[in-house]
Amino acid sequence: MKIYDAAMGPYPARVRIALAEKNMQSQVEFVPVDLLKGEHKTPEFRALNYSGTLPVLELDDGTLIAECTAITQYLDMLDGRPTLIGSTPREQGLIHMMSKRAELEVLDAISVYFHHATPGLGPHVELYQNPEWGLYQRDKALRGMRYFDGILQDQPFVVCEAFSMADITLIGALIFMGYLDVDVPAECEALPAWYARMQERPSVKNRITMSDLTVLAS
Amino acid sequence: MKIYDAAMGPYPARVRIALAEKNMQSQVEFVPVDLLKGEHKTPEFRALNYSGTLPVLELDDGTLIAECTAITQYLDMLDGRPTLIGSTPREQGLIHMMSKRAELEVLDAISVYFHHATPGLGPHVELYQNPEWGLYQRDKALRGMRYFDGILQDQPFVVCEAFSMADITLIGALIFMGYLDVDVPAECEALPAWYARMQERPSVKNRITMSDLTVLAS
Repeated sequence: MKIYDAAMGPYPARVRIALAEKNMQSQVEFVPVDLLKGEHKTPEFRALNYSGTLPVLELDDGTLIAECTAITQYLDMLDGRPTLIGSTPREQGLIHMMSKRAELEVLDAISVYFHHATPGLGPHVELYQNPEWGLYQRDKALRGMRYFDGILQDQPFVVCEAFSMADITLIGALIFMGYLDVDVPAECEALPAWYARMQERPSVKNRITMSDLTVLAS
Repeated sequence: MKIYDAAMGPYPARVRIALAEKNMQSQVEFVPVDLLKGEHKTPEFRALNYSGTLPVLELDDGTLIAECTAITQYLDMLDGRPTLIGSTPREQGLIHMMSKRAELEVLDAISVYFHHATPGLGPHVELYQNPEWGLYQRDKALRGMRYFDGILQDQPFVVCEAFSMADITLIGALIFMGYLDVDVPAECEALPAWYARMQERPSVKNRITMSDLTVLAS
């Protein structure tokens, strides 16, 4: 399998974490795509993923699977023992809901802020910006963080008692915020405590490897 | 089970279609939420679904599952014989990807157009509008329809050879467009032909019932 990704990308991080949680890193080859050069917006790349986003998983038979949730669903189901998307219908429903909510209310909102209200990936990539919308989405993300802080006051993970895809999505959001120096609201305590615990997981801590850093430096 | 929904809503339609495909309509009670009165934006409703959107599924034990994809995943897995989200990991990956793509590129884009560049649900509900962003998203949706038209030139359904959640999501988009008089681009032929076939399915055709119409008229 191949994964088109960018070592520092918050969305690619979600699939790297999922892979590591499943102990599958050795089964994939990472193909770096240069976001700053806008390689993900070229017609060649859009033939792999119409939406022009990373990551994209390519199976050995050429099948292309884009979108983090879809890739995670695939990887987690491969061995017939899902640990990230839940095993019962109720768990799967809750995990899909909370992962989507972490996208909608925090991660995607921060992404819109980055691409619309900051220089983003630079003027040759950000061909249209709507700064007012970007700032509105940043404020939405701050509200979303307060919501997740409330959830994490009562439980150790985003859904129930176990690590899941929903935690991974929220980790992606906090990685993105870290790059942009957007702070978690000062009154939040449970969210930073949860994030500190998440960073102790090898899948999160080691998601960027030495070879990635070589690619980035070249 | 209860489903908080609105009979005419394009997102609620997705879950109504999924329910009918699974022959589960008789197992749920529909609780109408008045979108035009903004009942979905009240603190009471947001306690059910933080995002303030329909539909929301409430299980008999009080568990709340929001987001169409999550609800569909739950309903389709209940009998252990998924027919909407795919049965193999590869099918599940592809169906989740294409359903998300239909949201991102068409349905959600049309929804943003509705809420930001038209009167939407009225000034008491649409407290912030960004018309430029709304029009930008309408154009994105038109491009997205051309993309799906291309896909449907080569195959009878959005993913492979079978009806799936991805078709349902795209049906939701075309229902929404129908309400707003946004036309499928004239050069598209496969997309309208697919939609005409979809409307022959009882799940799509009968998604609004007589009792819904009574509620709407009251």
